[in-house]
Amino acid sequence: MNAEWLTEDLHPYYRKSLKVKNKFVDEQTKYQHLQVFETEFFGNTLVLDGIIQLTERDNMGYHEMITHVPMLAVGLPKRVLIVGGGDGGSLQQVLRYPSVQEAVVCELDAKVVEYSRKYFPAFGDPWSDPRAKLLVRDAFGYLEESPGQFDVIISDTTDPIGMAERLFSDEFYRLMVRALAPGGAAATQCEQPYFDIELIKTIYKTAQALTKNPAYYYTQVPTYPGGGIGFMYVSDTPWENGLKTPYPPGVNNYLNTGIHRAAFAIPEFFRRELYD
Amino acid sequence: MNAEWLTEDLHPYYRKSLKVKNKFVDEQTKYQHLQVFETEFFGNTLVLDGIIQLTERDNMGYHEMITHVPMLAVGLPKRVLIVGGGDGGSLQQVLRYPSVQEAVVCELDAKVVEYSRKYFPAFGDPWSDPRAKLLVRDAFGYLEESPGQFDVIISDTTDPIGMAERLFSDEFYRLMVRALAPGGAAATQCEQPYFDIELIKTIYKTAQALTKNPAYYYTQVPTYPGGGIGFMYVSDTPWENGLKTPYPPGVNNYLNTGIHRAAFAIPEFFRRELYD
Repeated sequence: MNAEWLTEDLHPYYRKSLKVKNKFVDEQTKYQHLQVFETEFFGNTLVLDGIIQLTERDNMGYHEMITHVPMLAVGLPKRVLIVGGGDGGSLQQVLRYPSVQEAVVCELDAKVVEYSRKYFPAFGDPWSDPRAKLLVRDAFGYLEESPGQFDVIISDTTDPIGMAERLFSDEFYRLMVRALAPGGAAATQCEQPYFDIELIKTIYKTAQALTKNPAYYYTQVPTYPGGGIGFMYVSDTPWENGLKTPYPPGVNNYLNTGIHRAAFAIPEFFRRELYD
Repeated sequence: MNAEWLTEDLHPYYRKSLKVKNKFVDEQTKYQHLQVFETEFFGNTLVLDGIIQLTERDNMGYHEMITHVPMLAVGLPKRVLIVGGGDGGSLQQVLRYPSVQEAVVCELDAKVVEYSRKYFPAFGDPWSDPRAKLLVRDAFGYLEESPGQFDVIISDTTDPIGMAERLFSDEFYRLMVRALAPGGAAATQCEQPYFDIELIKTIYKTAQALTKNPAYYYTQVPTYPGGGIGFMYVSDTPWENGLKTPYPPGVNNYLNTGIHRAAFAIPEFFRRELYD
């Protein structure tokens, strides 16, 4: 495998490649093509259907931002749902909060959990925490059964291709908001302003119809297309409430108060399209 | 040239590729390998020694941020120096200020100016403005001759490889600060936090030794490595002064007040390294 490059071609006009040192896993699961590589500089890297999901070096920009923004806004969240997130990175951050009594991870592909436990030891095996509950099933049915059940919901999904496309639909957002407890907050993986502006606008309109204070925020992740990804914050509770909440025990590597505010500032061309 | 990819390999572990529609220029100038491509989605693209310098679609994140942050901080800048910047993108932004009486561009390679005028018409041919003055020469000698001459200096350079390496040296920063008028401000292209942290730390220490209020700030540019680039703000004048200054006539496509503040918020791992 020496001198080989892992090339992602999510977009027909833009590609990104990481230098591969080793390939640890290359398996067709029941649902997707799952690979784990050891890459130069970025460390172990999880790839699903050819798309880079996370690397050891830069996943903190994603996991700290998708979790802490809604968690801090709610303040003392007790019940948390993670849709997808089988790698355990979001679960690790959620379990830092002593207020959390139960964190349910609804992940369709048990193989993602199995291989991530093995190849991403820095996540600290959050699955062994008695508050963690893994459900290997589709999230739609579970959301339908769970109205008003969660203080925080985190939609930590792959891109809207194939089986994940439904997780970006109006119907998903409706079920997700219905599953929030009063005052609860959700954050969803919501793509890249330069590449995906039409999808983001559609989702923002959906979130506006369902909640009082939705907002788009952004984080740097060098190994994602365009070097970052955004999230839709979906809640009646303003995200600014989180600026006053103390951080949970443990170390932040990406988030600080400046970054928390800064994430909601978006480039002017995009602000005009989204908010004007 | 159909179906060909322009691949940049600045880093031994990370590559990025843009889909090429046409190649307009491919020339070895006196100083460097200069190429202009038409790419899918990103439009016309200037490449020097194999490194993407700018694309039509996303250069605003770079040009608006490297220019307006020091320009707004100074308030009513009269004399401005751009080191490098032969493409004209920074010059266009600088000339939006009615206060500017002279904008000197010190660019070593006249071919960059010639081809950029032809292939980047959106820059509006700033060279035809009578306030613009092109000097085809090395910046070091010019800075040595110009103590206290400029309200704003913008170091709009290539990466620190080959002939541009000196533009990241202690000696360059010393000459640059010496060429600032009292209260003047400089901004320099200053690389990527994930990839270049040691270089950024060194430059920050240099800037701290020379001025009272240096600070690092960051902008999104999807076609740059890691999806963005940073700048070192170098001045005795706090950058925050610029938050109160009205924008010059013309349209911002990247900068707004939220983005202005947000650019100075940096991820926690990097903040610890740089500022603690």
